[in-house]
Amino acid sequence: MTDSAEPVPFTIDDFAERMGRAARAAGAEGLDGLLVTPGPDLLYLTGYAPVAITERLTLLVVPVDGRPSLVVPKLERPDAERAAGAPALRLLDWTDGSDPYETAAPLLGPGRYAVSDSAWAMHLLGLQGRRTDTSYVAMTTALPMLRAVKDADELARLAAAGEAADAAYAEILKVRFAGRTEREVAADLAALLLRFGHSQVDFTVVGSGPNGANPHHEIGDRVIEHGDMVVLDFGGLKHGYGSDTTRTVHVGEPTEEERRVHEIVRRAQQAAFEVVRPGIECQEVDRVARAVIAEAGYVEYFIHRVGHGIGLTTHEPPYMVEGEHRRLQPGMCFSIEPGIYLPGRFGVRIEDIVVVEPDGGRRLNRTPHEMAIVA
Amino acid sequence: MTDSAEPVPFTIDDFAERMGRAARAAGAEGLDGLLVTPGPDLLYLTGYAPVAITERLTLLVVPVDGRPSLVVPKLERPDAERAAGAPALRLLDWTDGSDPYETAAPLLGPGRYAVSDSAWAMHLLGLQGRRTDTSYVAMTTALPMLRAVKDADELARLAAAGEAADAAYAEILKVRFAGRTEREVAADLAALLLRFGHSQVDFTVVGSGPNGANPHHEIGDRVIEHGDMVVLDFGGLKHGYGSDTTRTVHVGEPTEEERRVHEIVRRAQQAAFEVVRPGIECQEVDRVARAVIAEAGYVEYFIHRVGHGIGLTTHEPPYMVEGEHRRLQPGMCFSIEPGIYLPGRFGVRIEDIVVVEPDGGRRLNRTPHEMAIVA
Repeated sequence: MTDSAEPVPFTIDDFAERMGRAARAAGAEGLDGLLVTPGPDLLYLTGYAPVAITERLTLLVVPVDGRPSLVVPKLERPDAERAAGAPALRLLDWTDGSDPYETAAPLLGPGRYAVSDSAWAMHLLGLQGRRTDTSYVAMTTALPMLRAVKDADELARLAAAGEAADAAYAEILKVRFAGRTEREVAADLAALLLRFGHSQVDFTVVGSGPNGANPHHEIGDRVIEHGDMVVLDFGGLKHGYGSDTTRTVHVGEPTEEERRVHEIVRRAQQAAFEVVRPGIECQEVDRVARAVIAEAGYVEYFIHRVGHGIGLTTHEPPYMVEGEHRRLQPGMCFSIEPGIYLPGRFGVRIEDIVVVEPDGGRRLNRTPHEMAIVA
Repeated sequence: MTDSAEPVPFTIDDFAERMGRAARAAGAEGLDGLLVTPGPDLLYLTGYAPVAITERLTLLVVPVDGRPSLVVPKLERPDAERAAGAPALRLLDWTDGSDPYETAAPLLGPGRYAVSDSAWAMHLLGLQGRRTDTSYVAMTTALPMLRAVKDADELARLAAAGEAADAAYAEILKVRFAGRTEREVAADLAALLLRFGHSQVDFTVVGSGPNGANPHHEIGDRVIEHGDMVVLDFGGLKHGYGSDTTRTVHVGEPTEEERRVHEIVRRAQQAAFEVVRPGIECQEVDRVARAVIAEAGYVEYFIHRVGHGIGLTTHEPPYMVEGEHRRLQPGMCFSIEPGIYLPGRFGVRIEDIVVVEPDGGRRLNRTPHEMAIVA
């Protein structure tokens, strides 16, 4: 039942192509290059992920013109050399006790650089202090769409992650909810994601009853009761790409109000999905979902944006949020996850991952949106 | 066998005292305050750790004078309110789609602020862009010793983590090494750390034969063979505080050269331990170990600093490294871990956690340093 066949690995050509495209995009934005620290951007551009992200500087410098360089701690050099993208890079190392910014700073010309969102402030300050002829802008501000448009190989991985999440959801409906703690059901969900080929479980939210009304509640020791609404929001990585799915189930028969609130969220999700197509502004997806909920009188209880991009991470651009004027393009992949949270009572959220195709959206999650009744 | 009794939790008084001390230390350094993002500094000062560290701004502002404020995303506010240190804080929230720096920037006066090392560059750039009357310095540069001196309750937790790591090591000597992969032995080590009360396993390095010569090798699918040296470096968190221990074992009888190299490392570790006392410079600990290895003719194969602080994280100041002139104080806690790495052949490393006491060092690891022979 596990689809554990590894997809074909990305190659040196893939990484060289991505770095070239990133350099051109930076040039088009009037930048002089990109500065990338460990995390998804580095993995995307070079295939390299250090064993751990620590205070030791690892920095990819991609100039608009010229060959990219990777600065690494000396003792991590062997790992960096094994990365698939390494042959396209000039590798420089620094030793404990020396100043890593002395190694990195000469790789920069005077000018303006995009820097990874999650680069450590201490590293940015180290560069700013040593190169007063440079300025910096966050990657997401300058090049938010660096990883937003997925290629066919990436979409295949995202689809596989979505299928695995769907399979996990189908199985979780068969377990006992009433009388067990959120933590126990969450452990079942995590085991199911792993069973269906995830290498990593990032979150398994089980929000029962009033806990479901806190959209960032993860899990607790609350014992799930008959009559509870239960928000299940779960995801992780399969073959390096993310899944993220939410369904809201009910233990036993729901009340009329619970049905009504669930139906509003379902309609909001559907309406937002139907508006997806190339060329619309990201904020439009949020607005459409919000309008459905507002119309029903619950807008004050929908307290988060409607979606976020997904790829090498489970939260990345493009964000489907008011004020995001950038436009959808084919290959973008993101969540649509409206919710209604009634404090102290219950919450409902429904979330699918959706990819933009030339003529509309395609869901990567296929399980029904109807409120499942569990035992 | 598991010591799972939770220690008494830190209280609002602990957190208020820590924030007050941090503010005074910042003032003494000529700063106007501290800016702290999610991670160990925030946990140390407020007891708050968000469910995940994401692109959404969470920021603690501790002014030198006045009440600290915590800026949180609206949907994480309920979590923040539950933190033990929350009553000492003014909480402000911001909503998806609004600009979080608009909420945070007015909390800063003109002046200079220390900012968490691992704060996201995008957040630092957001503040720099909005408040051109401010300047910033990395926490470790300005206040490296913020968390370096541990109080009695913290030392008790670190000692418990060290005891658990020792118990795990004693048990791992009984398992079979030859004919199993590094990954399998690493899984045994991880299970043992959990069995002895760790809540989280951060690393279980198993570096066999030539893999041991790469000090940042973690684990692989190499099958361990009779005649291998095997570096075991493992640690994680117990009751929120770190363990980090290395021993080098041998599968069957070692050669004369393997014995000699191991003995050099053992003597280096012992010499560095014996120099520990309040008032010496951190770099002295590194120098003493390095001198022993240099004397034996292997200094070019000792390619990292000799140690790092440990507490809420397994890598933090103080660093025992050439150029670190700060002086040891009672209550500081750090690793001493010299190593010799012979490329393509084998490596040896021995590591204990040591706490500085008024009259010298005290080890938090007590298992023997002699090279254990495993099967």
